[in-house]
Amino acid sequence: MTATTPARTRLSPDERREQLLELGVRMLADHSLEELSIDLLAEAAGISRGLLYHYFGGKQGFYEAVVQRAADDLYAQTAPPSEGEPLERLQASMEAYVDYVAANRAGYASLVRAAAGGNDALRAIYDTTFDALGTRFFEEDTQSLLIADTPANRALIRGWQAMTEELTLTWCDDPSVLSRDDLLRVIAGSLPAVLAILA
Amino acid sequence: MTATTPARTRLSPDERREQLLELGVRMLADHSLEELSIDLLAEAAGISRGLLYHYFGGKQGFYEAVVQRAADDLYAQTAPPSEGEPLERLQASMEAYVDYVAANRAGYASLVRAAAGGNDALRAIYDTTFDALGTRFFEEDTQSLLIADTPANRALIRGWQAMTEELTLTWCDDPSVLSRDDLLRVIAGSLPAVLAILA
Repeated sequence: MTATTPARTRLSPDERREQLLELGVRMLADHSLEELSIDLLAEAAGISRGLLYHYFGGKQGFYEAVVQRAADDLYAQTAPPSEGEPLERLQASMEAYVDYVAANRAGYASLVRAAAGGNDALRAIYDTTFDALGTRFFEEDTQSLLIADTPANRALIRGWQAMTEELTLTWCDDPSVLSRDDLLRVIAGSLPAVLAILA
Repeated sequence: MTATTPARTRLSPDERREQLLELGVRMLADHSLEELSIDLLAEAAGISRGLLYHYFGGKQGFYEAVVQRAADDLYAQTAPPSEGEPLERLQASMEAYVDYVAANRAGYASLVRAAAGGNDALRAIYDTTFDALGTRFFEEDTQSLLIADTPANRALIRGWQAMTEELTLTWCDDPSVLSRDDLLRVIAGSLPAVLAILA
């Protein structure tokens, strides 16, 4: 006991908050947002509910902080590599996306639900992340995909993102419907195919 | 007054319920589910709240009945014509889908939100309709589209449906991003393009 207790007490408030956030994000991998109660986290972290409320200002604040962190992680982990052919870079980014969703199935699905379901703060986090993932195709460092930045192409990217999300969640629910390789072929191959229709 | 009152009272309870349902569906075109209160409908129908509760067993029952009717309408209106080339039939069906969503924007968007947002009954109506629209591709009378009924193709159809929904809602929000013709070209053209990736 003495080996762990002093280590805990040496954490600054910021470090402790960070530690709790990371724990929340890890728990979101296997739990839906609804299941991720303050009680559950307090128990897992070995601290009191009161202290958790202190750090996050309540249940809603805790959800928002955890979901924002998970969204930031998703955005960071799906960054396309800076080297390589455009299609290879897209494939690497989409592989990271599929792996992220597969590893965080429960939390990701509940974020999609929460975003759609009228919780304005969580919806804003989801929408901002969805937009940021799509906008990335038109940014300086990744524009080697050579997609013209037009309103029509931005709409097509949104549609393709929705297809990618639905396909990935369907595959996570039942991986027997198609192989991971085929899933990735469809995701990466459908983007140029869809863009070509209006090109 | 005497010209309309007798007409009203001649309606049977079933006819009256039907009339109220139709009014609810019409109001869903311009109002979200949240806005479609019993008060609003009672006022539009010129009857008491109590009578509405009598017909639908409460607010939730009224929502469910209206949404189920709207979903049935969507399914019926998007039935592919029985004659014509496969791609022409798909285009006709998708044209009806786009027109339905455009004409019922507020209600359709709020159904998507409600379905995702944890109202189990509304979600079941949405899921059943989404599945039925997708399953139609594999049914006897419409299978001239010649899509093999495999788990992978069913997953691809789900993904394509999600893209179609997102594209259509994006276009309804801002029709200037692409023309209706281009929207229909993308929707109808992307299905064979996506299926071809694994074929």
